[in-house]
Amino acid sequence: MANQAYDKLVQLCSELQILKDTQSLLSWDQEVNMAKKGVAYRAAQLSFLSGETHTRFTDPKVGDWIAEARGDDSLDQHQRANLREWDREYKRDTCLPVELVKKMAKTRVTAHEAWAEAREKSDFSLFRKPLAELIELSKEQVSYWGYEETPYNGLLDIYEKGATIDKIDRVFADYKNDLIPLVEQACALDRMEPEALQGEYPIDKQAAFNREVAASIGFDFDAGRIDTAVHPFCTGLGPFDTRLTTRYDTGDFRSSLYGVLHEAGHGLYDQGVNPDYHGTPCGEAVSLGVHESQSRLWENHVGRSLAFWEKWLPVAVTYFPNLDQLNAVEMTRAANLANKSFIRVEADEVTYDLHVILRYEIEKAIFSGELALDEIPDAWNSKFKESFGMEVDSYANGCLQDIHWSMGGFGYFPTYTLGNLNASHLVAAAREHDGVAGDMDQGEFGSLLSWMREKIHSAGSLYPPEELIERAAGKPVSPEAHLDHLRSRYL
Amino acid sequence: MANQAYDKLVQLCSELQILKDTQSLLSWDQEVNMAKKGVAYRAAQLSFLSGETHTRFTDPKVGDWIAEARGDDSLDQHQRANLREWDREYKRDTCLPVELVKKMAKTRVTAHEAWAEAREKSDFSLFRKPLAELIELSKEQVSYWGYEETPYNGLLDIYEKGATIDKIDRVFADYKNDLIPLVEQACALDRMEPEALQGEYPIDKQAAFNREVAASIGFDFDAGRIDTAVHPFCTGLGPFDTRLTTRYDTGDFRSSLYGVLHEAGHGLYDQGVNPDYHGTPCGEAVSLGVHESQSRLWENHVGRSLAFWEKWLPVAVTYFPNLDQLNAVEMTRAANLANKSFIRVEADEVTYDLHVILRYEIEKAIFSGELALDEIPDAWNSKFKESFGMEVDSYANGCLQDIHWSMGGFGYFPTYTLGNLNASHLVAAAREHDGVAGDMDQGEFGSLLSWMREKIHSAGSLYPPEELIERAAGKPVSPEAHLDHLRSRYL
Repeated sequence: MANQAYDKLVQLCSELQILKDTQSLLSWDQEVNMAKKGVAYRAAQLSFLSGETHTRFTDPKVGDWIAEARGDDSLDQHQRANLREWDREYKRDTCLPVELVKKMAKTRVTAHEAWAEAREKSDFSLFRKPLAELIELSKEQVSYWGYEETPYNGLLDIYEKGATIDKIDRVFADYKNDLIPLVEQACALDRMEPEALQGEYPIDKQAAFNREVAASIGFDFDAGRIDTAVHPFCTGLGPFDTRLTTRYDTGDFRSSLYGVLHEAGHGLYDQGVNPDYHGTPCGEAVSLGVHESQSRLWENHVGRSLAFWEKWLPVAVTYFPNLDQLNAVEMTRAANLANKSFIRVEADEVTYDLHVILRYEIEKAIFSGELALDEIPDAWNSKFKESFGMEVDSYANGCLQDIHWSMGGFGYFPTYTLGNLNASHLVAAAREHDGVAGDMDQGEFGSLLSWMREKIHSAGSLYPPEELIERAAGKPVSPEAHLDHLRSRYL
Repeated sequence: MANQAYDKLVQLCSELQILKDTQSLLSWDQEVNMAKKGVAYRAAQLSFLSGETHTRFTDPKVGDWIAEARGDDSLDQHQRANLREWDREYKRDTCLPVELVKKMAKTRVTAHEAWAEAREKSDFSLFRKPLAELIELSKEQVSYWGYEETPYNGLLDIYEKGATIDKIDRVFADYKNDLIPLVEQACALDRMEPEALQGEYPIDKQAAFNREVAASIGFDFDAGRIDTAVHPFCTGLGPFDTRLTTRYDTGDFRSSLYGVLHEAGHGLYDQGVNPDYHGTPCGEAVSLGVHESQSRLWENHVGRSLAFWEKWLPVAVTYFPNLDQLNAVEMTRAANLANKSFIRVEADEVTYDLHVILRYEIEKAIFSGELALDEIPDAWNSKFKESFGMEVDSYANGCLQDIHWSMGGFGYFPTYTLGNLNASHLVAAAREHDGVAGDMDQGEFGSLLSWMREKIHSAGSLYPPEELIERAAGKPVSPEAHLDHLRSRYL
């Protein structure tokens, strides 16, 4: 009886997963391929399909099935985990009227177009109206399921289950205290890019090199691909279909290389969950903070290591002959230069989290009501000056640089820093495991991937994020391993 | 009351159109982008969505709405046309069990993959099993809605409303009688390609030239794009999103150029229907035989004319400098060489319909039971020898060359020849219209497009295909205009 209820949930959620994966394709295609006149209809498609998905999942019979299945002691650990997540999601979704869900989907599409134009023209006023709508819709959304003190706590929890301002402030406070002097020290060294790096890097050569690197770290091109888009991202379209995007700088091949390593890190997680569980939480990544640990791991711990360049510089030279004037030590040092810059996605590892903490503080202030909409651009710029000591030269290089708000992704940014901390914490634990440290130091990362597959990827959402990290690493996350990592790379 | 029923139909069909357009994106993406391990899940997605679309449209209440709306005399001409088409479709679809519809969608996906491999390896046995399944499923399908004499009549009617073996035999017989001596005469001239055409044509240059040509004839790149795929096609993903594909031969730029002109012809029709009617038959192309008239028109009547090359050769030279040794007369003659070849999609205009008639005869024989599955490859080759006097050198160049059967598209081929006849018939009529002949002879095709927009594109499915052609041209279609056209081009 109860098992029948569980089976019905599995059947329904597999069908809904088909609709969700189809929406992912519609969105991916919009970013990568679609011409501009298609926007309005694509918005209508996404709105209709998200409404359908929502309506079906929020049917009262689904609540009955969940209640029934919860009474069954014969369910195994995976089934109980799925049920736990469905229950959370059902409670969330039944609070929301279909009209709100549809309106958010539709507003996101128009906001995204407005943001792209606003960024291009560095004109905040073009983005102002849809941004205001998305902030109000986000508040309305969390008001339906309740939150403590400020709507921002409700938003944080969307992206990182269990996260709150209190918890994040606690981790970030310790970290920030040690990070600020570290950034100053690292930047004071004033190391320079080697001139020999300057050159013309044709896009087709970059794409071929990136592909070779991504395949070598384990990204399966029979189950995915890399395309070009304004904003790099990774999306899963099904159990064997993982799409990465990147963008190219013909003056610096490392921009797309590290972008691809980052997105391939997400992609390896996506390709590493158990495909048999596709359509259920156990077949899904558990949180953004864990997802980001995987992307930062391959981008930074692997891609910016001496061992990586010892292996890959000779290959890079075959694509970009001007690099033959450099050695691996120089490439590694060049990949770990501390540099204050405007753009988060181009920031080095040591300054990166200052960008994130700035966004976190702005978002807190928006949702607590301390910061009015029109104050955002200047508040951003003045906070930037406080952290980095630099004047932001345009809104495009300031509050318009990121895609997140245009997608209504408030509360998302802190997961980047959680990801950095998790990455170092997990790598430190993996290196204790048989052979991993030795392999990594030889530029071989297969055993590192195997450890992540076993401890993180294959678990899906079996455990909540904090528990997963603690089980994998043997102790709860703290900033220590990451600060050690930054000191050894930058000082 | 009746109007309410009509409005409900419009609402439902708009939603179903969203699902259909989404399926088109899933299929387009499979052809253009998807990596191979994604196949099984993509099949499941298409199967689920086609099942959903079918289930919703075949709900008995839809039949009630149609019956109710039919009783209403206040409906206008467009509403009555939509109702006529919905009625036809509803009767068709309610005969079919959901399971059959799902099975066909799923089998098409696996058959498509099998065909691609079979063609690559020129091994019919790899395609045999899914082909057999598709033939049986097609018979089963038409058996549900009834047909006269042979299932093939039922299949013909899918692609060209009202078409039957009798009607087609009648047109084709006249045409074939005149065509056979014409082909012999044209081929006997034994004209040669100018050697100066030989060269290396880089893909990026071909793509840029094709894009310039396609934009100039009116294809709107803000509402569509061109990609690379094994088999060239055109698909509409929404009212402002038309996707063309092509493939490149680096030894001959004209292969992709004429492919793009052909698909852009389909695309212009797709972009020319009334977007306000999207989701209803009046916002849809009426038939394949009319669709093909538009593609052949731009490919042949426009793209192979002297006026075209007088305008475009100087531009082509900027992309492909080796062409500066040729003049427009030589390019035009080279674009109209009669040549017997194995591959339909590479055939010249004069031999093309012999390829189609061969397929039509093979399909008739398959569905009448005269031809067993394993006899297809040799029957193909022996018919080819009868028509063309040549031995087919491989199954890849014989019965495995076309994508159509792998998609279950039996009865589709004759629409190509109907398209050729319609194209010449319509162009002859358009040239009678103010200024069109003069413009065309100057290499300006805007007034030709305007005539097609007004007479053909904007009508959607307002009139049945034969009526549409007769209204546009002032008289019913016959092979005369096309034979005149071929004679003037080839002799």
